[in-house]
Amino acid sequence: MSGNRLEEFAPVFYPKSHAVIGASASERKFGGRFLKTLLNFGYSGKVYPVNPQESEVLGLKTYARVGDIPEPVEFASIAVPARAVPGVVEECLAKGVKAVQILSAGFRELGEEGARMERDLASMAARGLRIVGPNCFGVYCPGGGMTILPGENLSRETGPVGFISQSGGYAVRVPRRADGLGIRFSKAVSYGNACDINECDLLEYFLEDPETDIITGYLEGVRDGPRFFRVLKEVCRTKPVIIWKGGLTQGGARAAQSHTASLSGEEVIWEAVFRQTGAIQVNNLEELLDTTLAFIHLEPQMGRRMCSVGGGGGIGVAAADTWERAGLSVPLFPPELEKKLLAIIPAVGASAKNPVDVGGPFPMPPMLRAVLETVCTDADIDILVVDEIEMASALPGSKQQFRPPELLGETMQIPLDIKNRFGKPVVIVMPVEAVSTDSLESEGERRKIRDFYLQNGIPVYLTKERAAKALANLTGYYRHRNTVLS
Amino acid sequence: MSGNRLEEFAPVFYPKSHAVIGASASERKFGGRFLKTLLNFGYSGKVYPVNPQESEVLGLKTYARVGDIPEPVEFASIAVPARAVPGVVEECLAKGVKAVQILSAGFRELGEEGARMERDLASMAARGLRIVGPNCFGVYCPGGGMTILPGENLSRETGPVGFISQSGGYAVRVPRRADGLGIRFSKAVSYGNACDINECDLLEYFLEDPETDIITGYLEGVRDGPRFFRVLKEVCRTKPVIIWKGGLTQGGARAAQSHTASLSGEEVIWEAVFRQTGAIQVNNLEELLDTTLAFIHLEPQMGRRMCSVGGGGGIGVAAADTWERAGLSVPLFPPELEKKLLAIIPAVGASAKNPVDVGGPFPMPPMLRAVLETVCTDADIDILVVDEIEMASALPGSKQQFRPPELLGETMQIPLDIKNRFGKPVVIVMPVEAVSTDSLESEGERRKIRDFYLQNGIPVYLTKERAAKALANLTGYYRHRNTVLS
Repeated sequence: MSGNRLEEFAPVFYPKSHAVIGASASERKFGGRFLKTLLNFGYSGKVYPVNPQESEVLGLKTYARVGDIPEPVEFASIAVPARAVPGVVEECLAKGVKAVQILSAGFRELGEEGARMERDLASMAARGLRIVGPNCFGVYCPGGGMTILPGENLSRETGPVGFISQSGGYAVRVPRRADGLGIRFSKAVSYGNACDINECDLLEYFLEDPETDIITGYLEGVRDGPRFFRVLKEVCRTKPVIIWKGGLTQGGARAAQSHTASLSGEEVIWEAVFRQTGAIQVNNLEELLDTTLAFIHLEPQMGRRMCSVGGGGGIGVAAADTWERAGLSVPLFPPELEKKLLAIIPAVGASAKNPVDVGGPFPMPPMLRAVLETVCTDADIDILVVDEIEMASALPGSKQQFRPPELLGETMQIPLDIKNRFGKPVVIVMPVEAVSTDSLESEGERRKIRDFYLQNGIPVYLTKERAAKALANLTGYYRHRNTVLS
Repeated sequence: MSGNRLEEFAPVFYPKSHAVIGASASERKFGGRFLKTLLNFGYSGKVYPVNPQESEVLGLKTYARVGDIPEPVEFASIAVPARAVPGVVEECLAKGVKAVQILSAGFRELGEEGARMERDLASMAARGLRIVGPNCFGVYCPGGGMTILPGENLSRETGPVGFISQSGGYAVRVPRRADGLGIRFSKAVSYGNACDINECDLLEYFLEDPETDIITGYLEGVRDGPRFFRVLKEVCRTKPVIIWKGGLTQGGARAAQSHTASLSGEEVIWEAVFRQTGAIQVNNLEELLDTTLAFIHLEPQMGRRMCSVGGGGGIGVAAADTWERAGLSVPLFPPELEKKLLAIIPAVGASAKNPVDVGGPFPMPPMLRAVLETVCTDADIDILVVDEIEMASALPGSKQQFRPPELLGETMQIPLDIKNRFGKPVVIVMPVEAVSTDSLESEGERRKIRDFYLQNGIPVYLTKERAAKALANLTGYYRHRNTVLS
């Protein structure tokens, strides 16, 4: 593993000055949109628009060439047509720019001529300038005031998650969707065709980066398989790496070829990579975020003995099926525990076995509290799931009240108290039940309740299946790490 | 298969008079809540509350016993404690009541004494009265003005879907969630412990019922395996049967035992049942609704050659992976078609292969239209998916405009025009991107766009995975049916 990545990548994530080459007043051009986005996001370093046809863009003095800028320039964003890019990068080198991101597309993904240009770029990089891209959306780093091309509204807050994406689209979609779930990023990098900085470099950076605790990625292919394997294995010993590998199927691999010119390789090889490195495989954007949420909120956890407490018999049956299908277990309760629970739950229409059925989706607070306390005290379990217990006063989409509104706060508080008192991971499953156009109010309530838990260290999932996958991924990672390190 | 189920079940679904035994003014009691629910839902037959402690409930004259009602009574809902139920049913028999639903719980699911009471009920049923339940939420039949226990706000509209549920909770949750998606029911029946009317009787009824085109069910166990297999196979020859079987795992089977005293049986046996009958297996509530949506909106369809058109390269890679993983195929386009598409889509940052990448989530309407028309004309495909193309003017959660608002209607119309012109199934994938508490407005827009498509025969799915499962289920059913019948 090579030297000090932190220092090496500082100009990429925290540049003190930033030239936008191809800047224009037209938002219909990438360069115009990017400059406006960067300024609106709140980049606080010096900004120099570069465009030979303009003398001023968005009120900023504009230079014909990067070499004309009278002060030193640490970083440049390049949004000019592909054929002009190598010349521009050459000028950046001459100017002493330390790193650039090339937002332009039209390189390797279009064939041999583009590939040749990329080889030229790579040799320029070797002469002392780092390159992100081409064919990418660039760097999002709230701490450095940097955001990606369509990322004006991404959060300004820094958080523990690093994200690398070979796809520009997902480089935006992942942080945007994550943002609504309270997931904050240290850095997200759309690295596109990776003519210089690639997934391995970024993994090494994130390993060193004290801001990053959890590493996530959307990858289509890797350039150097053996290095990737080595680096990934090393990083996974210290930090979890959650990877969505696109192009695992035949059709997907073909699509990746025309997207980022990636050779996606065989499914079976990638399975071995995940198995042997301990990296966490996820198969879509939802699973990537769900798994990240588990790592953010839950302590390192190897135990897979689930107890779920739900508001209905069918819910319990479905829960047990779901946990077991995901490789989690549903231990039997000891008879004394069942006996204790029978004294708490309703005599009919409920169940004191695991999963517990408290008889309906609106248990009165003292009963719910007593059930959760009792299972946490007496059951040999690792993870507690509060499963489709309604925290609101009415069923979503219904105007009927099932719980007096004054009990809402009391009910909501219970899972949190349990988590704090017993120190066990608590997880909540809370589906979107009110899906109609006219039940947005109810959806708003649900989101508020979700945010309350997310702010208090309790991950919330939309379905049992999604919770199960996230928990299997979390425990799978720590199990592997424990085996490897012990 | 026995006689005329339509006539036999008319008193259950369309009773002209209805006694509510155990009715009370207290909504905290099942009988009180049920009576109010029934009246608010709009039941238009005669209603007779029965309760020896009351002379009037909700303004209705109340009788001490069902035998005291001076007019004939066709149907009775029973919500008295379990031990009083057999006596009440005996009185109903004597009164000439044709069918009852027993909402009370506390029977077979609690042990031998309850099981004995159920056997008594079964022998009363044999003397000329049909029983739904016990331990159930009863019957929802909008055409008959009937609704289940917590079903006051379910739709009053009738639709093509029949639903049977061994779980009371899912008997409410499924129609409620479905309602927001525009899925309407002919009947939904929570049949609980099934001491008389069971899943086989209901399947036979739905087969005959001209109102029902698609049969759905949540089952935990069946009483008579060979009959169930025979009936299910017969019904599947004519109407699709979508079954969520709870309790397939060991833990799930244990939970089903304490929920509805069902012996859920081995996973391997159930796999054979699905394979040999052609019934469609789904594994959760979402898949049940997604699959139903496909059957409602799409014509019978065996072809699995997918073409998806999306707004990004990563989206195309993910799409191909998802279709292939679900057993759908992603055919290569002929070179002439790729050539035609290359003349339409942007020269860089797009792809003319399958899945098509139109270069970004906001294609201009004429370009999107031309791409869809071209693939429908020239590609040998069965199903067209419009995949994460933004129909709105801005990305969810973003205030930046990417498409002039005046083009919104034009863009939205395109998939519909394509469907109408080419007669091919069109499916839309449209995720919830704006998940934050303060982006409800954007979620409202999304739901309106979704409803526009649902009203026009285009199913909309939240993720590619969910679309893929629904389409695999749809085509799988017709493939099986075609094999069996040919």
